[in-house]
Amino acid sequence: MPMSTEHTHLNPHISRQFSNELEDVRRKVLAMGGLVEEQLAVALRVLTDGDARLGAEVTAREEQINAAEIEIDSQCTQILARRQPAASDLRLVLTVMKMLGDIERIGDEAKRIERIAEGLVGEDSHGEEPTAALAGLGVQARDMLRGALDAFARLDERLALDVIRRDRRIDARYRDLLALLTDRMRQTPDAIPRELERLWAARSLERVGDRCKNLCEYVLYLVRGKDVRHTGLARNEDPAAE
Amino acid sequence: MPMSTEHTHLNPHISRQFSNELEDVRRKVLAMGGLVEEQLAVALRVLTDGDARLGAEVTAREEQINAAEIEIDSQCTQILARRQPAASDLRLVLTVMKMLGDIERIGDEAKRIERIAEGLVGEDSHGEEPTAALAGLGVQARDMLRGALDAFARLDERLALDVIRRDRRIDARYRDLLALLTDRMRQTPDAIPRELERLWAARSLERVGDRCKNLCEYVLYLVRGKDVRHTGLARNEDPAAE
Repeated sequence: MPMSTEHTHLNPHISRQFSNELEDVRRKVLAMGGLVEEQLAVALRVLTDGDARLGAEVTAREEQINAAEIEIDSQCTQILARRQPAASDLRLVLTVMKMLGDIERIGDEAKRIERIAEGLVGEDSHGEEPTAALAGLGVQARDMLRGALDAFARLDERLALDVIRRDRRIDARYRDLLALLTDRMRQTPDAIPRELERLWAARSLERVGDRCKNLCEYVLYLVRGKDVRHTGLARNEDPAAE
Repeated sequence: MPMSTEHTHLNPHISRQFSNELEDVRRKVLAMGGLVEEQLAVALRVLTDGDARLGAEVTAREEQINAAEIEIDSQCTQILARRQPAASDLRLVLTVMKMLGDIERIGDEAKRIERIAEGLVGEDSHGEEPTAALAGLGVQARDMLRGALDAFARLDERLALDVIRRDRRIDARYRDLLALLTDRMRQTPDAIPRELERLWAARSLERVGDRCKNLCEYVLYLVRGKDVRHTGLARNEDPAAE
């Protein structure tokens, strides 16, 4: 899908160059998103399989993610300064700049989950109810991230709305897990530190969901040309109602 | 302090108008920051004094904060589209757009703390050690927010660095409180739900500190003209080392 058709006032050569720059930014954001997806996948593997040999990989990938954020942000600033984009080009650049922060912080949450999971390795908690519940939450968070990145890649309004809607489900599941963990703490006070670690992992996954919702709100802004934050899902629900 | 001296290529009339627009944006961000400061102050009052009559006020103020975010963001987008700012003007507009998200989310954390505090009213926990520790954390978070907003208002690099440095202290204090609460849960399993609520409040205050650090990193970007995120405090420490 072409990302830009607005810079028709430019001469064809400049216009082509500009399109390439925007396409490059778009590609890089998706690549950065891919790194964060991997980061989250690895964190979940450590959490569910207890494979703790992946820590160094996570640290290296975090550096790549941070570098990508700085690079893309600086590229966007340069585009704003040099190309002075308007309309949908401007929206694309601004959307990308906003998405960067959320994508990077999803990476941070993934790293946090991986660290927690490393600490839990050897606790022999496989097959336990909270481990399964965390894994379920993790699958939901990963699907939301995939959905948010796809919605951006394809400028898919319906998919963006679908991901926003899924945030409620992950919140509900998070609350169930919170109740389960609280219960276990009460029954076995000695296990409180371990259950708290799981609670932090669950919280991180819930926050990944929040950030995926943010990403999709930016995608809606990009597609619709208006800001839908703080308006409530109801008004976002049906594109036909616009 | 003049926020902009870069648009000298414009005719004097346009240049004056443009300066006024930038000044207006800057003023509105500070006003929005003031609302968030009040939101946090009220939340802390409910937390420490147990005065729960402030809930409606918090809800009303949250709407104002959300509306301010949308309005200022849209104003910035219009400035980018119409004025095509360069150099420090462009940095100011982009810095503001980034700050908005963090300021708004500090407001969200304040609201969350206020809700938790309301739930704790009547628990007769005044004079208890965690209440005092939470209050201390709250004072630190408020001071960081005040410092971050002042650093932006005055473009004060040293103050921004000072606030960034303080984030470590709030993190340390948060970890102490976490240990204290874990201990209390272990000793009195029946109090686990209450101690967890306090834990969430502490976590929110720690996150306010994180976001104040983000705000100050944006201020450094604005002042220095280069991105200091992910570079570690050491390299930010001494402006003379640049």
